[in-house]
Amino acid sequence: MPLVAEAVRRMSPGRISPPLVLVNFKCYLEATGARAVQLARYAEQTSKKFGVVVAVAPQATDLRLVSQQTKVPVFAQHVDPIGPGSHTGHVLAESVLEAGASGILVNHSERRLEASSIEEVVSRGKNLGLTTVVCANTSGVAAAVSSLDPDMIAVEPPELIGTGVAVSEAKPEIITDTVSRIRRVNSAVTILCGAGITSGGDVREALRLGTQGVLVASGVVKAKDQAAAIADLAGACLQ
Amino acid sequence: MPLVAEAVRRMSPGRISPPLVLVNFKCYLEATGARAVQLARYAEQTSKKFGVVVAVAPQATDLRLVSQQTKVPVFAQHVDPIGPGSHTGHVLAESVLEAGASGILVNHSERRLEASSIEEVVSRGKNLGLTTVVCANTSGVAAAVSSLDPDMIAVEPPELIGTGVAVSEAKPEIITDTVSRIRRVNSAVTILCGAGITSGGDVREALRLGTQGVLVASGVVKAKDQAAAIADLAGACLQ
Amino acid sequence: MPLVAEAVRRMSPGRISPPLVLVNFKCYLEATGARAVQLARYAEQTSKKFGVVVAVAPQATDLRLVSQQTKVPVFAQHVDPIGPGSHTGHVLAESVLEAGASGILVNHSERRLEASSIEEVVSRGKNLGLTTVVCANTSGVAAAVSSLDPDMIAVEPPELIGTGVAVSEAKPEIITDTVSRIRRVNSAVTILCGAGITSGGDVREALRLGTQGVLVASGVVKAKDQAAAIADLAGACLQ
Amino acid sequence: MPLVAEAVRRMSPGRISPPLVLVNFKCYLEATGARAVQLARYAEQTSKKFGVVVAVAPQATDLRLVSQQTKVPVFAQHVDPIGPGSHTGHVLAESVLEAGASGILVNHSERRLEASSIEEVVSRGKNLGLTTVVCANTSGVAAAVSSLDPDMIAVEPPELIGTGVAVSEAKPEIITDTVSRIRRVNSAVTILCGAGITSGGDVREALRLGTQGVLVASGVVKAKDQAAAIADLAGACLQ
Repeated sequence: MPLVAEAVRRMSPGRISPPLVLVNFKCYLEATGARAVQLARYAEQTSKKFGVVVAVAPQATDLRLVSQQTKVPVFAQHVDPIGPGSHTGHVLAESVLEAGASGILVNHSERRLEASSIEEVVSRGKNLGLTTVVCANTSGVAAAVSSLDPDMIAVEPPELIGTGVAVSEAKPEIITDTVSRIRRVNSAVTILCGAGITSGGDVREALRLGTQGVLVASGVVKAKDQAAAIADLAGACLQ
Repeated sequence: MPLVAEAVRRMSPGRISPPLVLVNFKCYLEATGARAVQLARYAEQTSKKFGVVVAVAPQATDLRLVSQQTKVPVFAQHVDPIGPGSHTGHVLAESVLEAGASGILVNHSERRLEASSIEEVVSRGKNLGLTTVVCANTSGVAAAVSSLDPDMIAVEPPELIGTGVAVSEAKPEIITDTVSRIRRVNSAVTILCGAGITSGGDVREALRLGTQGVLVASGVVKAKDQAAAIADLAGACLQ
Repeated sequence: MPLVAEAVRRMSPGRISPPLVLVNFKCYLEATGARAVQLARYAEQTSKKFGVVVAVAPQATDLRLVSQQTKVPVFAQHVDPIGPGSHTGHVLAESVLEAGASGILVNHSERRLEASSIEEVVSRGKNLGLTTVVCANTSGVAAAVSSLDPDMIAVEPPELIGTGVAVSEAKPEIITDTVSRIRRVNSAVTILCGAGITSGGDVREALRLGTQGVLVASGVVKAKDQAAAIADLAGACLQ
Repeated sequence: MPLVAEAVRRMSPGRISPPLVLVNFKCYLEATGARAVQLARYAEQTSKKFGVVVAVAPQATDLRLVSQQTKVPVFAQHVDPIGPGSHTGHVLAESVLEAGASGILVNHSERRLEASSIEEVVSRGKNLGLTTVVCANTSGVAAAVSSLDPDMIAVEPPELIGTGVAVSEAKPEIITDTVSRIRRVNSAVTILCGAGITSGGDVREALRLGTQGVLVASGVVKAKDQAAAIADLAGACLQ
């Protein structure tokens, strides 16, 4: 399947090496359809300018469109723990791959999975060559999913999501504690800091606390100047 | 939004008038990506040949692709009871519309919704001009969802799904009883017969029992000759 | 099974005839264990005093205790759509009956069920002789569940639950519209008014608008004087 | 609260020390109501005879009855990730404790929880002094939940549940691999072997492979002679 090769190319080691900024488009209209493409183009331009990976996670309906019209790594926001078959209304890893995605984001606080489903989705994703990012709302859950060996873990305390208050500022000990608990179980997984990230300062603090990148949503999507917001975050990864 | 106009055009009264054949692609690889387009083309050709509406329900990831490359009415297989916003990993009616869908299928036996969610999705879909099809597994549920006033109800006894045994053959009284119970509540809704439909004979029987079309999946998608299978079903609508 | 006879006795026609007050204990500590029994005793005393049925819905863990120590009709707060068997962690209708319950409450806004599950639970409950009460958050859902033929429907707009603002006061048209939509489908079902009921005045208004009783929770459970709160509501049913 | 003291007494170190046999009553009628008490009495008698802990997990509706009429440790089959409050139809840890339970079983394959919910339930349970047992369907999930620090982990490959084929026989490497993966993360947690356990031989094999007890359901509940079945399992723990 040439699509696998394409996905591999998008996520080749050179490109996905941390630090990285992953932008979750959620179901925001400001990041739907043509506006999803526009936002991904900002990510692409910023990525080129700073040499930092800026990946995007559009809605399932926009995965192919964004993949075809930009060169940024594209992540699905959710995948179901199923294989091909009779699963009306579900999201299949194979279909996400064929639509051009190179990764999947699962277990976000807005779309949590059973523990056994996280394992199955990570396993299926890896078998297909997809980069797997598992969200965790606490240090305990982060340590737990470390045993499932995803490529990345994104720590998102739900009480800070969408608040504009960065977890790295409000509760730095959550990050350091989480990094520490993850490392006891898994030394290789990439750790992203999420929830409330809005500025380059938040990113610098997140990296200083031991993470390798950030997961951000409203801080970019809802920004008056989306391009400037991405540039601010990506630029901070270099310092 | 020009997309609304496009959707209206696709579903203009002349085109969607029953009888119709709605093909559910589920998560079958035989109906994913490029193969989803191919199958939708068969539907398009058959539709033109017989003057019968043949609509398709691809996966969310394929909605835009199929919409752009064919002229058949395209349905989403599932939509979540949400509006635009912070809903990572969900399917938004607005996004489905923007991807080119003209309708939505909800509450399939493989993706059931809470009663209150069915109402919300139907309401949101109608407000956007999307044709709404609600699946029901029994005559009681069919009567219940009739009160929620969707455009269509598809009756799918789960024990027959994927068996190749048509409900119209195995349990004709389910269909007549369901039609009767629906009509006591709602005289306008279009009724589709689902589960086990594989042949033109099944379609004729379903229409004879008082329905206005069929919902079919494996009978077409898994057929050795998909084009012939669609033609068989669509042709039977004329007799 | 003598337990069935006991349940029938508790809910004999003379006792359950409307108007009635149904008190939902939720997971409030003020209505757990020994305090559940105390609250049920208040219901029993009030019931005797006014000749009005006051029923209670304790947690599953307290069903037997309350049933054994009082004579009020006892309802489960939830039952799963299952029969006896391998269903670890679920609530079985047969077990609820054997614990002494004479009815079941399902589809509360805090514990919603899929449409098909509501039908199955109502059907199973009725086969066991349990009185079935289905909650509905809107007039549309109320009309829908009317087709499933439960014994009672409780209308609970979720935006008013726990607010202390009675739906009968805040949105009387919700009640009259709901009664009207239910009656078009089902002339026999008993209709309860829920959400925000705290005073006898609320009850009188609810009955005046066409309902046959009320479903109440925090208005009684969280009252400083639970006995007085129940008496206020039950007394109002007589006027 | 004297109930806490009672729970502590039931689970005092001397009593709960492994090996142990935990019997899951599921929703079997053979283990409901009066028959739940009878089965718990067999557990009690066997426990006394062999000096091996035999604990039981009845349905929520039977927790108090079994706790009051026997002296065996009683576990809830499921608890929801909630605190006291407006949670109609849910199972509250505090209520389970007040009903006499000394432990909780969660995340069974028939009642799986989201990863974040497992953490919350384990945390709430431990704060109340309840013994926490988390089920895991694979070695990966077992390793993951080890990070959440429950008191016990029960390994139950779903493909063997209810088959009468013991996991220790059919797939001994699942057990040894699971023990090994758990121990890398957590050296203290008690490990139970579940699924398909029906005979003393199965128990001996499970203990030999590194577990400290068994979780059993149909092997006891559906046995022609329940008392003999328990005795067979408990006796094998001694050898």
